Parts: sequence; C-alpha cells; structure tokens
Amino acid sequence: MQKVIIIGAGFAGLRAAKTLAGKNLDVLLIDQQNYHCFQPLLYQVATAGLEPEQIAYPVRGIMHNWPGVRFLMARVEHIDRSAKQVQTTMGSFSYDYLIVAAGGQTNYFGNRELEQYSFGLKTLNDAEQLRNHLLSTFERAAYESDPKVRQALHTFVVVGGGPTGVELAGAIRELVKHVLVRDFPQLENRQVQVILLEATDKVLGMFPKRLQQKTLRRLEQMGVDVRLNTAVEGASADQVQLKGGEVIPTHTLIWAAGVQGVSLAQSLELALVRGNRVQVQPDLSLADDPVVYIVGDLAYIEQAGKALPQVAPVAIQQAVTAAKNILQHSTGQATSNFVYRDRGSMATIGRNAAVAYIFGLQFWGFPAWVVWLFIHLMSLVGFRNRVVVLINWAYNYFFYDQAIRLITANRKPGDVDLAPALEHIQATTK
Amino acid sequence: MQKVIIIGAGFAGLRAAKTLAGKNLDVLLIDQQNYHCFQPLLYQVATAGLEPEQIAYPVRGIMHNWPGVRFLMARVEHIDRSAKQVQTTMGSFSYDYLIVAAGGQTNYFGNRELEQYSFGLKTLNDAEQLRNHLLSTFERAAYESDPKVRQALHTFVVVGGGPTGVELAGAIRELVKHVLVRDFPQLENRQVQVILLEATDKVLGMFPKRLQQKTLRRLEQMGVDVRLNTAVEGASADQVQLKGGEVIPTHTLIWAAGVQGVSLAQSLELALVRGNRVQVQPDLSLADDPVVYIVGDLAYIEQAGKALPQVAPVAIQQAVTAAKNILQHSTGQATSNFVYRDRGSMATIGRNAAVAYIFGLQFWGFPAWVVWLFIHLMSLVGFRNRVVVLINWAYNYFFYDQAIRLITANRKPGDVDLAPALEHIQATTK
Repeated sequence: MQKVIIIGAGFAGLRAAKTLAGKNLDVLLIDQQNYHCFQPLLYQVATAGLEPEQIAYPVRGIMHNWPGVRFLMARVEHIDRSAKQVQTTMGSFSYDYLIVAAGGQTNYFGNRELEQYSFGLKTLNDAEQLRNHLLSTFERAAYESDPKVRQALHTFVVVGGGPTGVELAGAIRELVKHVLVRDFPQLENRQVQVILLEATDKVLGMFPKRLQQKTLRRLEQMGVDVRLNTAVEGASADQVQLKGGEVIPTHTLIWAAGVQGVSLAQSLELALVRGNRVQVQPDLSLADDPVVYIVGDLAYIEQAGKALPQVAPVAIQQAVTAAKNILQHSTGQATSNFVYRDRGSMATIGRNAAVAYIFGLQFWGFPAWVVWLFIHLMSLVGFRNRVVVLINWAYNYFFYDQAIRLITANRKPGDVDLAPALEHIQATTK
Repeated sequence: MQKVIIIGAGFAGLRAAKTLAGKNLDVLLIDQQNYHCFQPLLYQVATAGLEPEQIAYPVRGIMHNWPGVRFLMARVEHIDRSAKQVQTTMGSFSYDYLIVAAGGQTNYFGNRELEQYSFGLKTLNDAEQLRNHLLSTFERAAYESDPKVRQALHTFVVVGGGPTGVELAGAIRELVKHVLVRDFPQLENRQVQVILLEATDKVLGMFPKRLQQKTLRRLEQMGVDVRLNTAVEGASADQVQLKGGEVIPTHTLIWAAGVQGVSLAQSLELALVRGNRVQVQPDLSLADDPVVYIVGDLAYIEQAGKALPQVAPVAIQQAVTAAKNILQHSTGQATSNFVYRDRGSMATIGRNAAVAYIFGLQFWGFPAWVVWLFIHLMSLVGFRNRVVVLINWAYNYFFYDQAIRLITANRKPGDVDLAPALEHIQATTK
C-alpha cells in the first residue's frame, strides 16, 4: 500500500487527508498539536468574545470516519527528500508521497525587537496570551497614579491593515466600549486609544476601493485611529517607534502585518521565494520531486500574474488538487494544474458591520455582517463548537457582554512589564 | 466611611462582599486572579468535559451591582495586623475590618517528592495542566513499542477517596470508555488502569455507610481499581511507591488527598492548627483581634465536637456570618456565633450515577445524578456559563463525546516525561 504523509492539520492538511481517506492508501497526518484551530476567529479569542476551546477541535475526532488515515502528534524536525523520510520528535516515517501543509507563522521581517515586544495572532496560544495581556493592562491601570503610565497602558497599537488587523482593532474598541467601562467604573471609553498602523495607503488591500473606504469610515466612527502610510521601526516594553521618528508610548503592540512560511521549509533544501514560501509547479508539486506537494500558506504560486494570497480558501482548494494529483500519479495518470476559484473575501469590523466581496458583489453593513456570521459559524468544525459559538455570539450581542474576560496563567514569555502585580502572579502560579 | 478588606474571591469572599455591598462601607475585594472559579467542576475540566472558561467568571462582572465594593487584582504578600494594613503586589491598603477568605491549597503533608511528581486539582490552571497531561499520555502511548512503558502510560493513579478523587477516577474511566477508544483504534478500554488509593477503610468518608458501599460498587463496576487502606509513600516521574513497598509504574499521579490553608495564614502570626488552618472564635473573629475574621477553608472551627469540613457550603455560610458580624460590631452591637446548617453532600461517580445525602435523605443512581446536575448548574455564576455548561453536558451525554480533548501549551512545570515529542512542543510553542 502506498504511504502518504501529510504535514499539518490546518485547513489544507485536513482537507487533503479527507480527500485521500478510503482510497486504499496508508495516510499519516502529522501535527504538533492534537487539534485543528479555526484561525479566522482567533481575534475573538484575543478579545474575550470566545473561549479558546470553541474554535479548536481534536484532530482524532475529525478523522473518526476516514479509513486509512492515522494521526501522529509530533513536531516535524526535518524532511529528508533523498531518503523519502520525515523525521519527527516521535521517530522517522517514510513516504511514497508527501504533502507539506505546514502553514505560516508571523512575519516580523527579521526584526527581533518587534518579535520580542509584540503579540502575534497565529495560534490559540497567541490569542490566549494576548487576551491575558489586554485585560491585565486595565487591571494595572486601575491602580496607576501616574497619568502618563496610565495612558500608555490604555494605548493599543495594531500593526497591519489586513482583515486580522481591522477585525482586532474593531474588537478591542467594542470590548472597551461595551464591557470594560462597566467593569472599571473610573474608565471612560475615550481614554482608551486604539491605533491601527498600515504601511500602505489603504486598509483591506484585496477588497474593492468602495469597501476599503467604508471600512475606513466605520473604523474611524468607532474611534479607531487609523494611520495609513505609517510603518513601524522598533519597539520596547513601553513604546513603539514609527519610521520618521514618532514614538507612541504603549504597553501593547500587536503584529498582524504579515505571514511567512514556517521554518520547516528550509529542510526542503530549495531556494525559497519571498516570505519563506516554496515555489511550486502548476500541479503543486516540486519541480525536481514529483512526489512532494506543497499546499497552503507555505506554497507560492501565481495566477494571472499575481501571487495567490495566504488564505483558507486557497489552502483548501490546493489540498484537494494535490490529493487528487497523488491519486492520479499513483495510477500512472497525468496530474492536473491548480486553478483557484476566488469566491470572495470578507472581514468584520464590529457589531452589525462587515464588508464582503462575494462572487463580484459588494456588501457592507448589517447584511455583510450576517453573511459573515453565517459563513464562519458553518465553517467551524464540530456540531458542539457551532452551538456554543452561536450561543456566545448571541449572548455577547444581546447582553453587550463578553464573559471570557479572564486572565489565566498563560503569558507570553517576557510579558512582565505589567509588574509588580503580574510578575508575582506568574511566578507563583504553578 | 469604614474600610473593609476581603482577601479572596472564592465562594466565601464573594458572598462576604455581596453581603456588605450597599451598606455604606468602603469594601475592597482582593484576589490574585480576576475571576471566580467554580472548583466543584474542576474535575470535568481535567477530563475534557468542560472548557476552563465555562466554570470561571470575571469578578468585576459579578460585582456590577454591588455598591461600595471595589476590586483589586493583586497577590497579598503580608497582613500587618498591628498597622491594620494588607500589603499586596500593587501596594499597601489599610482596613478597619478584614475578612481573610484566602482558601486552601493542595496538602502534600510536607512530601516534596509527591508535590513535584503529582497533579493537584485546586485551580483552573491545575485542571488544564492535568487535562493536557492525561491526553498526552495517550498520544505518546499510541507510538510506544515497549509494552511496559505503554502500560505505565495507560495507568492513572488517583490518591484520595473523597468526592474529588471519586469523581475524577470515574470521569477518567468514562473518558477512556466512550471517547478515547474511538480516537485511538488500537486502544482497548481494559488496557487502561485507573487506580483509586484511599488511606482509610472507606470512600466518601462523610457520607452514610450505605452510600459509601453503593459508590464503591459502582466504581468497581466501571473498572476503577479501588484500594482502601493504602497509603502512598513516594513518587517519581514513572512510578508511585506505596507504603509497604509495592510499586505502581505510572506517568500520572493525581493528588486529591487533602487541603490545607494557604501559606498567607503564616503572616497572621498565630499558632496554626492542623492543616495550616486558623483557629477562630465562635463568631469567626480572631481571639486577640476582633476586627479580623477568617472564613472558608482557612478557618478552623468545631461544631458538636467535630471540625467543620472544607467545603463550599461551610465557606458561604461563614461569609454571611462574618459580614453580618462586621456590620453589627461597627454599630456597637454584639456579634453572633456561627452555626453551620448542613443541607447535605453529594458526589457524582459517572453517567447516570451519583450519591446524595440531602436533609437526611439518601439518594443514589439516576435520581441523585439528576439532582447533582441541577444543583451544580444552578450554582454556576453567570447565565452564559449555565447555558454553555448545560449544552456541553447534553452534548457529552447524548453523543458520548467530550469535545474539549485538546492538548494546549499549558503544562505543569517539569511535566516532560512524555518526551521526546512533548518536550519539543513545549520548547517551541511561544
């Protein structure tokens, strides 16, 4: 029986495994987590709207009815293409075909300072650490007598005007306006500053111009200070330096300005293109290795002269193509080229407000928001998750509340600038 | 205005704050967490039945309508009774009256080895770390070729035959039987050993004899290996040593054998009684300090010649008495003595199975289980939590599933014996 190894249980890896299930293959799906995480909703975990466990689902639970698919929880350390082996922390496994769907990680463009002092939003852990930090700044500010320090604690800088940055900036604004002002009687909504920095001259770059403008206007109505053509140069524990010299005192820098391929890509021993991505053939295989396929955020492929974006629909469609190509190749047939069908994009800005560009149609406001809710709810894995997320959303919506505003022990390493209190909590919590 | 400080936002601290709210007092409630945790359901978090966030509720959310009560998230480092000051990691605060409701922590009876190698179950963090560990043992065992190591990974030792130990042992058994055997096709229910060790000759010591026997029989039916009159002497990463010399190879030792008062008690500078508890006067104040009250797990008081147990109903009733005594004392009236009204106890063993001893009546089986569910659901703080817990319970019950079986990055320090895989995950997860 032919052996297929799939690295990564994200959108692409899961879809590839599902497509190959029951096809008389020995499929091994490897991920370093035992769960699939629905990344598009991470920003709601970070802003206390959803519980981390609600947007994650155990991989083994998803695979119950996938014959021929096994799961291994391990970290892949190296891909040895000449020996056709994947070396993991749980031993080595050989393959006849390999699908690398290992995804992306936050791209700090090599700036170590930014990496150290900012919060990313790519994993469940990132989201929980950001939530704990955000909420801690308010606990700390409530007993801070120096108005300058208090203002820095109440300043949140989000970098990156893509969907993640827009959604997060809006969500922080709403968390403060509807929930935290009630929790902290001394706090006024206008004391809190949410600044969205974008290096180009627009937000939501891949959307039509009209939706970009609607997004901008809505963000400004909500009190988000959007600064276009503004790039970040450096950061420390209590400030952000902009290109041009301006300094923003803040204890919270959130980095949503880019994704790059995971570092595992290096072990393929290929020249990588921009963003640590792997250039693939039109059928998604490697030029010199027709049994290795790269899909999802890690793959670089152009269509109509433009690089395909690192988003879930691309990853899912690529996974299907790669899986089918393996089936075709293994039976001696020619492989098919990948063609992306762009069904559209959407982003939510806040309560009753989203923008959507679907099948060439533009929506905004409440209708777009309802469509966004529906599509995201249906995309969650697992009946239970859909129900509890729906209930949380309904609860948050009707009660203007976000009950998950808990500060748990999970902190970003080095996140001790909220000392003295939190340093101690961290040290003493087992 | 008189200042009251309450240390601890557990069952006792919250009830005390609520009783003192709106009484023209300046009340400061201090806790090192920003949430109240419903400890009786921690065992369900540990066994993947509930999400950590579902049994916790933000303290500030609870206090919205409590006039005169402020909250401080900080760790109390010292109580200076002579200066009437509480020193915290966020500064010092003075009081006219003090209620210490700081609760208990796991009691290892001074055995550092047991503390190092076992999992406690007193905090949300404990529960999440135990869940991550439990699930990891199965991921690790699935690729373990040495049958001895595999058996040790599949052996779970729970120490303590009180409600926590009984509930946890039953819940692990059911997690394996209904959920994990489907996740791991090679796994058989009978391969997994759950051993419940109890030093005395009975489980559920405070229950009537008939209910103890029903519990014992039910646990044995479920496949829990209950060993009475068995004490633990030592432990290491891969075994537990019993008194008498027997050694059980296991990677999981769970310590539910005792609670002691938190170490903060030392700063009261009093002789402490057994279990690090503070002997209080009949009105719950200190003998030499009538403005300091001790309530909950930290307080030691006898009734009808027996020490009151460290359970939520005692804590809640004591909080009301202490708060009322402060109101009486501050207006020059005599204080009242505490009288505990024991409404009963209950413990769940598994699906459709519980024991309850309420108002002198004994229930067991399905009726007791329904009563248990109802009472625990209603005791949760927050409408949202009740709804999502109910849905989770219904989902788990009807689908024989527990969807929270996620291994997150939160690990007990030193929990690396599941290496190599998990060590790496821990090291590389930010």
